Amino acid sequence: MDQLPFQSLPLCGILAMSICTYFATLSLIPVLREKFIKANLFGIDMNKKTHKKIPEAMGIISGGTFLITMFLFIPVRFSYYIFNDVNLPRNELDELLAALLSICCMLLFGFLDDVLNLKWRHKLFLPTISSLPLLIVYYINSNSTLIIVPKPFRTFFGLSIDLGIFYYFYMLMLAVFCTNAINIHAGINGLEAGQSIVIAISIIIFNGVELFGKCIQAHQFSLYLMIPFLASSVALFKYNRYPASVFVGDTFCYSSGMTFVVVGIIGHFSKTMLLFFMPQIFNFLYSVPQLFHLIPCPRHRLPKYDEKTDISKPSVIVFDKKELNRLARFIMSIFRCFRVVDWKESDDGIVVCNNLTLNNFVLIFFGPIREPSLTNIMLLIQVICSVFAFIIRYPLASVFYDT
Amino acid sequence: MDQLPFQSLPLCGILAMSICTYFATLSLIPVLREKFIKANLFGIDMNKKTHKKIPEAMGIISGGTFLITMFLFIPVRFSYYIFNDVNLPRNELDELLAALLSICCMLLFGFLDDVLNLKWRHKLFLPTISSLPLLIVYYINSNSTLIIVPKPFRTFFGLSIDLGIFYYFYMLMLAVFCTNAINIHAGINGLEAGQSIVIAISIIIFNGVELFGKCIQAHQFSLYLMIPFLASSVALFKYNRYPASVFVGDTFCYSSGMTFVVVGIIGHFSKTMLLFFMPQIFNFLYSVPQLFHLIPCPRHRLPKYDEKTDISKPSVIVFDKKELNRLARFIMSIFRCFRVVDWKESDDGIVVCNNLTLNNFVLIFFGPIREPSLTNIMLLIQVICSVFAFIIRYPLASVFYDT
Repeated sequence: MDQLPFQSLPLCGILAMSICTYFATLSLIPVLREKFIKANLFGIDMNKKTHKKIPEAMGIISGGTFLITMFLFIPVRFSYYIFNDVNLPRNELDELLAALLSICCMLLFGFLDDVLNLKWRHKLFLPTISSLPLLIVYYINSNSTLIIVPKPFRTFFGLSIDLGIFYYFYMLMLAVFCTNAINIHAGINGLEAGQSIVIAISIIIFNGVELFGKCIQAHQFSLYLMIPFLASSVALFKYNRYPASVFVGDTFCYSSGMTFVVVGIIGHFSKTMLLFFMPQIFNFLYSVPQLFHLIPCPRHRLPKYDEKTDISKPSVIVFDKKELNRLARFIMSIFRCFRVVDWKESDDGIVVCNNLTLNNFVLIFFGPIREPSLTNIMLLIQVICSVFAFIIRYPLASVFYDT
Repeated sequence: MDQLPFQSLPLCGILAMSICTYFATLSLIPVLREKFIKANLFGIDMNKKTHKKIPEAMGIISGGTFLITMFLFIPVRFSYYIFNDVNLPRNELDELLAALLSICCMLLFGFLDDVLNLKWRHKLFLPTISSLPLLIVYYINSNSTLIIVPKPFRTFFGLSIDLGIFYYFYMLMLAVFCTNAINIHAGINGLEAGQSIVIAISIIIFNGVELFGKCIQAHQFSLYLMIPFLASSVALFKYNRYPASVFVGDTFCYSSGMTFVVVGIIGHFSKTMLLFFMPQIFNFLYSVPQLFHLIPCPRHRLPKYDEKTDISKPSVIVFDKKELNRLARFIMSIFRCFRVVDWKESDDGIVVCNNLTLNNFVLIFFGPIREPSLTNIMLLIQVICSVFAFIIRYPLASVFYDT
């Protein structure tokens, strides 16, 4: 068997198909824009002088082209086995079908959320449900729930720990986190699609490096999904970047989050994948006091726009300090101690504090700037975090693990 | 191995789960009704005196509960193999995943159609795409493209014909037909859900009978999907029947059509399944002149409502006979010959003709009646056709095939 062409054929196939996906997404979005506005699926960009209608939930188009590409790719992937009458890798077929089922389901729920504005509890429930087929196939195919203990802790825990059922709980939490983390790290033009592109490229580079390692099949699998996802997301980004002519919606955030979860779980690199989510993790941790309503949380937390100067400033909330409970006071005192919030308190205890998002944090740090500059900084942070992730994954990992 | 309990366990499981699905759907619909109206997803019932807003696309709720049930059922189905460490039937896992992927995809596209009002060409394209995963798994698992020739034709064609690629083309057409056939056989309260319920019950009875035959696994597979589908559809029907408090939308029509296609293809009984679609086939053939725009086709073809008498009459179209092309004149002359249309022609060639739907046809036959009576007649026709289908499938089939 000619190993190289046999293995690289599906990769060449998905590359060629992804180029078509890119152009298909690029041409479909302007065609369908008006239909979305007519269907009442639009928003007004609050950070612009012109208050025109911008179609929402356009992630359904990039998600749709991605799904169609993957459907067409399945026969390409297994053509070698089919035409040469060789036993097909059933594991991989199951994994691919389960992965697409989870993503398709999340795309459906995301679009449902965009149309119906679901409640927070649904946002936690739906990714859990969507990831079920994936976890079942994971259980059937590998059921690997061992984690290797880092060297410094081996005297206490041994070489590895079998997390058992807790590993499944971790994967469910991962699905809930990743789908929502992209959604709450949003609010400025191009950030949702942009961050997903950076994460996708990081994963593709990681998979590319690991193709020379032991787990070739797992990383090839990840590439089959990541390359067309990247293609459709880049096309979407072209319309979503400043000044945005479309909004991506929860549809995109959820489905892209689920796509990352899927490759992380099936490719057995969920921890490395989480490293690429550093800005999202920071944004989530920073947002905790507002997400859990320890301090007031308005519906939109995006930066405040000054129409005269076309500049974005941190948006703020105003509240009475006396209304905060003990935990809220404790957390906010830590935030103030590390100077990560802009906290102004009057003598009668009325507090003016920035909304706790990474966008506002950057604006506090850099001062008021224009929206496109803010997006660029945010994406640069995402890139820097990815570089940092690679440093942790490769040189630093050898300190903690036997590589 | 204790054969009976082992085989009946998943069936008992899906029965119990379907009861939960029924009650979940029943309680979710009223909770979410208002959300749909708020999201601009509503219609006005044109056949009622009260012109209140009725939520549309509620098939997404029954479809959602059905999908969630199926996700939870996967581990139940394979629990025997997992806990006894017996080799799992990979074929069936693939088929189940592909089936759910096709249904989920059709649910997504149906909801998209309800929200965006897609064009006719999309309605043909989307089922084709959605059925791809199913056909690929069919190819990988069985690739059975042989059809048995009925006895009278065996002297010409032999015992069987291998249709090869044409069998796949047939299955694609089946997906396009079944998803759309339910959608165009609609327009009165309770008909979409009602006809699906009758078809589902017919398939369940057929599967039940065939459980005592040779292909037990295929018919069990069909039951796993049909029972929860029936449960969710009955719950939806309770709100959709006269006077409807919800509309089911394209979402329901498409996804139910795809569910039938899926069980027909995977269960290898697509021809028998088509027998249960007789009213839909008649409705489609009757509609052809309007669907292909040989004669004018208005957007809505539902019966005309007389507000004073609360009675439905056949709705009509008015056109100039001179505008019809040769083919249209030929087809309509056949229809008139068989007296299946109510055709009134004035001296100057202006024609008044009923809209070509089974609903209007029944109204011509029975005269003007109230909407609930019309629905009852339509559902009775569906039941009679199912009985007729069983007669064709069992006593008559032995005339044409070796049974």
